[in-house]
Amino acid sequence: MNYAIAIHGGAGPDSDFIRSHLTEYESGLKSVLEAGNKMLENGGSAVDAVEAAVRSLEDNHLFNSGRGSALNHLGEIEMDASIMEGKELLTGAVSMLKNVRNPITLARFIMEKTSYVFLSDSGALDMAKDENLDLEPDSYFVTDNQLEEWLETRKRDEIQDILRKRVHGTVGAVAIDKKGNMAAATSTGGSCNAHAGRIGDSSIIGAGCYARNGLCALSGTGDGEYIVNNVMAHSVAMLMELTGCSLDEACHKVIHERLKNVDGDLGIIGVDSDANISMVFNTPRMHRAAMKNGEILQIRVYS
Amino acid sequence: MNYAIAIHGGAGPDSDFIRSHLTEYESGLKSVLEAGNKMLENGGSAVDAVEAAVRSLEDNHLFNSGRGSALNHLGEIEMDASIMEGKELLTGAVSMLKNVRNPITLARFIMEKTSYVFLSDSGALDMAKDENLDLEPDSYFVTDNQLEEWLETRKRDEIQDILRKRVHGTVGAVAIDKKGNMAAATSTGGSCNAHAGRIGDSSIIGAGCYARNGLCALSGTGDGEYIVNNVMAHSVAMLMELTGCSLDEACHKVIHERLKNVDGDLGIIGVDSDANISMVFNTPRMHRAAMKNGEILQIRVYS
Repeated sequence: MNYAIAIHGGAGPDSDFIRSHLTEYESGLKSVLEAGNKMLENGGSAVDAVEAAVRSLEDNHLFNSGRGSALNHLGEIEMDASIMEGKELLTGAVSMLKNVRNPITLARFIMEKTSYVFLSDSGALDMAKDENLDLEPDSYFVTDNQLEEWLETRKRDEIQDILRKRVHGTVGAVAIDKKGNMAAATSTGGSCNAHAGRIGDSSIIGAGCYARNGLCALSGTGDGEYIVNNVMAHSVAMLMELTGCSLDEACHKVIHERLKNVDGDLGIIGVDSDANISMVFNTPRMHRAAMKNGEILQIRVYS
Repeated sequence: MNYAIAIHGGAGPDSDFIRSHLTEYESGLKSVLEAGNKMLENGGSAVDAVEAAVRSLEDNHLFNSGRGSALNHLGEIEMDASIMEGKELLTGAVSMLKNVRNPITLARFIMEKTSYVFLSDSGALDMAKDENLDLEPDSYFVTDNQLEEWLETRKRDEIQDILRKRVHGTVGAVAIDKKGNMAAATSTGGSCNAHAGRIGDSSIIGAGCYARNGLCALSGTGDGEYIVNNVMAHSVAMLMELTGCSLDEACHKVIHERLKNVDGDLGIIGVDSDANISMVFNTPRMHRAAMKNGEILQIRVYS
């Protein structure tokens, strides 16, 4: 049976920082993609593949999730993540998480081993400690680049510089395995200088993450508030289910038609039940990469 | 133009406590309903009406939201709420909130006055303090009944008694005003003895709350984890939009067909653009009440 994986590392405006690190971004995407593909090729599950891909992106300091997360207005790290498997429609999510090296792994634990679907803050951290998940000190998560961006963002008079350099973002992965099972995973460090406690789309099932076998698996990125208001990922899935349109048509319809008046960054990646990939965004760039049946389809940052 | 309001106070199993307080529950529902109807009759907005209705239910100690919230496994109060208006598709939500007398009012503030859609925990509390919202000490929220239930729930050997007495629940309101604007609001004190940090459907747009002008406004209740996994409210809205079915058909289809294998309590109330009301649940009871154009349609607890 066809299998495929796609990953993203956030959609957003042009950025000098990203342009000056393009090679590292592309090689990072490539290694994560190929590792996920290898798992699927060897008969691994879609859930295993998307969790592993997002873990690698969380560990990569260039992406805004796990290590390299943005700092909120208190200068603290607060991470959100979610995962969904498409067979039983099980989900797991975390928000406001500190010190857990891989938020996506805690989300998966919540999905598979508890009666909950969403845990937040110290309650989520306590569960991670009980389960002996890898913990790291605050300093592990804070990169020079994110600290510098935070300091600049706090100087309100330099807004144009901030916009040019902005690296707000998310990471995500979607996959279909050889058994036809589908999964999606999304993780973020949030928005630079956001109010403490801010939750965006990355931990909201239906907004930044959705998967249903026989239909699609989706991960979103962009300005999370608009993605929440518009229940973006679930809109794509319901369009496919109820109108019979293709994944690509549904993604375009949602981003470029239904949400065309949204004054914000939007991006989505998806895979359908035939292992077709779609990656649609309304921004100058979306870090993205995809493989189907062992063949690389795309590894790109700019459009 | 037609106007209508519907409210709910949670769906769930039969309960000796509820049976012994039926008159108080029904009179509580009636006064909240009539106050909301009066606002709409006087030309008030749907957002004003659903916020006011949910505030009253939060203030009523018999319902599990605001005063009367359930205690988590640490014996603490953590409240979730969300609100959505259907004209601009704006939303606001809070979770893990303590000490704010009316979580729905903070959710509305976030929706209307900030660039965020969802704030959690101490970050949300800080915003409430900045805005001088009414705060209350912990003792205000804890009722004798919820404390007793929590103490009983912790005695694992008396599970049958707990089930008989269970008053887990949510409150919610939906409305359409004379201008055709629609809104939905949902609020909860969570599940008794839940893990700290547990978030259910009540703060998740698309799950326990959704509104879109010209289509419907919806508020959900029940076992929140299943409602999140199935993006319940947005499923109803998309079925109406894409298949042209009525609100009542869509609510029945979601609760009794699409989610028929879900082993949990589910309930939903909705209003459509003609001010028709639907209230559907798979449980022995759902506290519910509705008025259309000033006429009481229903005030009931059991089916």
